[in-house]
Amino acid sequence: MAIVNTRVERADAAVIDGLARTGVATVHESQGRTGLLGHRLRPIYSGARIAGSAVTISAPPGDNWMIHVAVEQLQPGDVLVLAPTSPCLDGYFGELLATSAQARGCRGLVIDAGVRDVRDLTEMRFPVWSRAVFAQGTVKETLGSVNVAIVCAGGLVNAGDVIVADDDGVCVVPRLRAAEVLKASEVREANEAAKRARLADGELGLDIYAMRERLAAKGLKYV
Amino acid sequence: MAIVNTRVERADAAVIDGLARTGVATVHESQGRTGLLGHRLRPIYSGARIAGSAVTISAPPGDNWMIHVAVEQLQPGDVLVLAPTSPCLDGYFGELLATSAQARGCRGLVIDAGVRDVRDLTEMRFPVWSRAVFAQGTVKETLGSVNVAIVCAGGLVNAGDVIVADDDGVCVVPRLRAAEVLKASEVREANEAAKRARLADGELGLDIYAMRERLAAKGLKYV
Amino acid sequence: MAIVNTRVERADAAVIDGLARTGVATVHESQGRTGLLGHRLRPIYSGARIAGSAVTISAPPGDNWMIHVAVEQLQPGDVLVLAPTSPCLDGYFGELLATSAQARGCRGLVIDAGVRDVRDLTEMRFPVWSRAVFAQGTVKETLGSVNVAIVCAGGLVNAGDVIVADDDGVCVVPRLRAAEVLKASEVREANEAAKRARLADGELGLDIYAMRERLAAKGLKYV
Amino acid sequence: MAIVNTRVERADAAVIDGLARTGVATVHESQGRTGLLGHRLRPIYSGARIAGSAVTISAPPGDNWMIHVAVEQLQPGDVLVLAPTSPCLDGYFGELLATSAQARGCRGLVIDAGVRDVRDLTEMRFPVWSRAVFAQGTVKETLGSVNVAIVCAGGLVNAGDVIVADDDGVCVVPRLRAAEVLKASEVREANEAAKRARLADGELGLDIYAMRERLAAKGLKYV
Amino acid sequence: MAIVNTRVERADAAVIDGLARTGVATVHESQGRTGLLGHRLRPIYSGARIAGSAVTISAPPGDNWMIHVAVEQLQPGDVLVLAPTSPCLDGYFGELLATSAQARGCRGLVIDAGVRDVRDLTEMRFPVWSRAVFAQGTVKETLGSVNVAIVCAGGLVNAGDVIVADDDGVCVVPRLRAAEVLKASEVREANEAAKRARLADGELGLDIYAMRERLAAKGLKYV
Amino acid sequence: MAIVNTRVERADAAVIDGLARTGVATVHESQGRTGLLGHRLRPIYSGARIAGSAVTISAPPGDNWMIHVAVEQLQPGDVLVLAPTSPCLDGYFGELLATSAQARGCRGLVIDAGVRDVRDLTEMRFPVWSRAVFAQGTVKETLGSVNVAIVCAGGLVNAGDVIVADDDGVCVVPRLRAAEVLKASEVREANEAAKRARLADGELGLDIYAMRERLAAKGLKYV
Repeated sequence: MAIVNTRVERADAAVIDGLARTGVATVHESQGRTGLLGHRLRPIYSGARIAGSAVTISAPPGDNWMIHVAVEQLQPGDVLVLAPTSPCLDGYFGELLATSAQARGCRGLVIDAGVRDVRDLTEMRFPVWSRAVFAQGTVKETLGSVNVAIVCAGGLVNAGDVIVADDDGVCVVPRLRAAEVLKASEVREANEAAKRARLADGELGLDIYAMRERLAAKGLKYV
Repeated sequence: MAIVNTRVERADAAVIDGLARTGVATVHESQGRTGLLGHRLRPIYSGARIAGSAVTISAPPGDNWMIHVAVEQLQPGDVLVLAPTSPCLDGYFGELLATSAQARGCRGLVIDAGVRDVRDLTEMRFPVWSRAVFAQGTVKETLGSVNVAIVCAGGLVNAGDVIVADDDGVCVVPRLRAAEVLKASEVREANEAAKRARLADGELGLDIYAMRERLAAKGLKYV
Repeated sequence: MAIVNTRVERADAAVIDGLARTGVATVHESQGRTGLLGHRLRPIYSGARIAGSAVTISAPPGDNWMIHVAVEQLQPGDVLVLAPTSPCLDGYFGELLATSAQARGCRGLVIDAGVRDVRDLTEMRFPVWSRAVFAQGTVKETLGSVNVAIVCAGGLVNAGDVIVADDDGVCVVPRLRAAEVLKASEVREANEAAKRARLADGELGLDIYAMRERLAAKGLKYV
Repeated sequence: MAIVNTRVERADAAVIDGLARTGVATVHESQGRTGLLGHRLRPIYSGARIAGSAVTISAPPGDNWMIHVAVEQLQPGDVLVLAPTSPCLDGYFGELLATSAQARGCRGLVIDAGVRDVRDLTEMRFPVWSRAVFAQGTVKETLGSVNVAIVCAGGLVNAGDVIVADDDGVCVVPRLRAAEVLKASEVREANEAAKRARLADGELGLDIYAMRERLAAKGLKYV
Repeated sequence: MAIVNTRVERADAAVIDGLARTGVATVHESQGRTGLLGHRLRPIYSGARIAGSAVTISAPPGDNWMIHVAVEQLQPGDVLVLAPTSPCLDGYFGELLATSAQARGCRGLVIDAGVRDVRDLTEMRFPVWSRAVFAQGTVKETLGSVNVAIVCAGGLVNAGDVIVADDDGVCVVPRLRAAEVLKASEVREANEAAKRARLADGELGLDIYAMRERLAAKGLKYV
Repeated sequence: MAIVNTRVERADAAVIDGLARTGVATVHESQGRTGLLGHRLRPIYSGARIAGSAVTISAPPGDNWMIHVAVEQLQPGDVLVLAPTSPCLDGYFGELLATSAQARGCRGLVIDAGVRDVRDLTEMRFPVWSRAVFAQGTVKETLGSVNVAIVCAGGLVNAGDVIVADDDGVCVVPRLRAAEVLKASEVREANEAAKRARLADGELGLDIYAMRERLAAKGLKYV
């Protein structure tokens, strides 16, 4: 049952970069409010904003052996995504693994468990979204799998899906929908730019979105 | 049952600004250790320090419609305070709403739920104290109320109460007690300044506060 | 039962400073993956990196009286470590106590409860690792003990043990093992430096650590 | 600030008993989905179903002194409701206090903290809804208040409000609305009885509630 | 995006019943320690032991409209499985819906949210595994989907998968693997029966499983 | 570092049985409110009431190998106590291990992790206090230690300490203090019996404990 899938297709690089620029909240809305991973994944430092193709890792609790296996599968522009097979907060990943991943072009890590060496990772500008910061060490005894479908922080991730991550959290875009989602995101952004200007001028959302009649019909009373 | 109270009295502006300068911990102590909201409300960035009059929102889970209604009720110097009617972490509020609120003079948001676009909000210097950062979108289908009494993170908030918020969390001062609490806070601060100097010189709290006798009476043993 | 132990032995100052430089993750690994306190202890600001001798406090919930007692026991280079006798998030410690502790040479606080005045503490560069930031005040009514063995965030701490703390959390090194752990940490660091260079050059951990054969033997399949 | 309010009005006894029979879920719906306390309050044994007038207690963390004060204020048919002034799980209440409360006609306890002696309480049939079962002892050092407004598990409770509690949790009915809420609950129950019979016969809610058209209008697709 | 899949294949009824008899722990082991849903799903009463085909529901937070839609899709022997699209503890399901589901042959509910009327559900012997018991009401305003793939308490569930649930929690068996997993479970059970007898006689697992040599090789020391 | 301590002294059997009869809350009070393990340890069924000598297990996360080692160390009247070296909810223990432990006279298990087969364990009357019920399987790959000092749910446990457990939770009595704590518990019980009778007659704690004067002195006001 322990396998490494070596043939993962990636989305188009320009599309991936476009999604990074757009950001998590917009991408999530643009694909119909789906794909968001749980809010328990938080960035170890503020300001990172990335997108990349998922190299997924299903790992036993407290065992980071498969990360070493996954690093070999990395291509430039990829993002590592790890889910433990049962809840675990151990520090699976630190500065040495980050050095290795970064050397292979990896853009960051999403991990539904712990991470350590966060000061070094911050200095290296290797962004991590994790469930915990915890120095607890791990072993290398039990196999897991790489590039299989995983559930990470409540969301389904397939190898090659596009991971978008910023200060708002992490969103997954299925590889085959990436171009369409980018397009929808760009439309949404253009649309929002116009509204932003009006709102900044003091116009009300109640008027811009014509909400007053529907609020009254539902029974809202001003007293 | 869905109402908007349009007649909210505010406390005196100078008193509100005085409370902002004093900060949460002092204000909380000065009103007899009451009024503190739950520790789960955390600021999205460090260093903000505000006070303002509460415009309260009682909102259904996953539905941010009433924020648009509340924005119209904002006066310069106000703070939005939202409590969902059942526990919810969705991202009710983001950059567009912040643009609108800021245009109307709003000083920040306190929300016992999620917030998103935190990078933009940080750049705009629109401070938020929230239970979570989560990009999860909301709908606009069900009414709630604005400027009614709400329980937010375990504390009671009435419209027009003074909200004081900084890196330590959020404290609520009843409108009619605001001036008296500010006075007590200023006395407390003056008192602390003298003690700070003595402590900085290496004098012990045991001596400054004359604790040794009472400790011995209670039975403390040095070995 | 309420006692203050006034005769605490400390580890060698140079060893303590060596452990601070090495950091939590390395120290934890070097003493056989033991001594780590729970991940719920987080620093109030990033970048602090300290080590010091533990002055321990066992305090009742919501009662910070014994901190005043503990401050008198501080020697330059010490770290305060507080565990409540039942779970509590109250803000036991703030800027006045920090002023007092800092005046006596204290390097920081580790507290399995709440802390307040975090903006002031940050400006003073008085680092704190806490379970919560919470302005909730405490009383001075019930005795506890100082410099007794305590369990703090799941870890055993004896007075005089070396506390190592940085952005990864907090680790405890038994006083009598401190020199040996420092030595092991330095060996580990030297060893890692060599590996870091190879990994940065793109060599794989799979090869450096000679993992391929064992992975195959365990049954890993590439597809 | 520490007060005992000795003049609390109660709702009509027959109304209170009617609300007990109706149960939490129906009462909550019948008063417009308000009044529910947080789901963290769980019964120590299954099957209890009570209603009574609230005798409220605001107590310091880890200090149960005010329960003794509150017991004197109990009248037959009352329910004790305790909220700590900061989060606390200590076992404020056990078998001796239950003996005392039961002797004065108390119907149960709602406590946003811990309880102990649960085996004895179960044998005595003294029901408790609590946040935790925890034997941790408390002290009697600091005052609180009795029969003041409190926030308990996120809900506002005034002395004399009707507390309804069963296996679903705890709901608060404002004293002056009790009769009206009972009436609405009885209408609701009658209404549900008719629907229950039809549903038990295999009729669908989609048809009974005429939902199909609205679902289609919103865009639901069957594939 | 809101769809109802009306063509769901089910596994063989005898296989499903075999899996119910075997129980969650054995089934989970027999399919390679996969398929377990999160431990936060707990039964509302002890002793239920079911298996059935999943009718899945993806529902908005605080909105139970789609359960009515799902009930129409139920066939005798099915189990309802609901995941909210963002974390929610509201009581989506109570006694009326259970009456309706039971009338159509439904064997139980698995819900990563809240449930209410648990006393009635217990009397009806309609088992529920839920994240919370909470009377909080829901609305019927926003669409979701029925019989699509969902992630429920961290596990992937496809419509028609076999749900096995007992006091240990909930396990999902992919429909096409059900027969094979049952076979493996029966082998496992037979195997365990032999071992149980030897262990009951006081023989040690160390000897039965021949562990002593490997323990010694790893370095275990008896002192 | 992985050791099995085979020479553990136990407390007197009659003392242990006396402590079981007395129960957790009384024992905890009688030893000065110390020794209580965290409230997260809950019994898998109600009504069990045991005491026994601790056979301690320090186990890696997700690895139950050392339980097999510990079973050999069991003597009649012992209780197994397991703490994982990092937070873990996996089901380390089930019906086969319980059969083996029970055959050797073990009275129960205290585990700061998960347990499974709870229906079988309930039928066998093998009581367990655990952090979770979770069927998640474990491996047998990494050593731990048996009969060393461990921290379990926040409390320190030495091999041979007396474990007292009932519906209120778990309390640890140091072996050498067991006789003295039993004596104090019996005095306490006798004392409480007298008070119980007076309270049952309607006398108030305020009078029995002579609290009125001290309450007034602290400033309590009746209004």
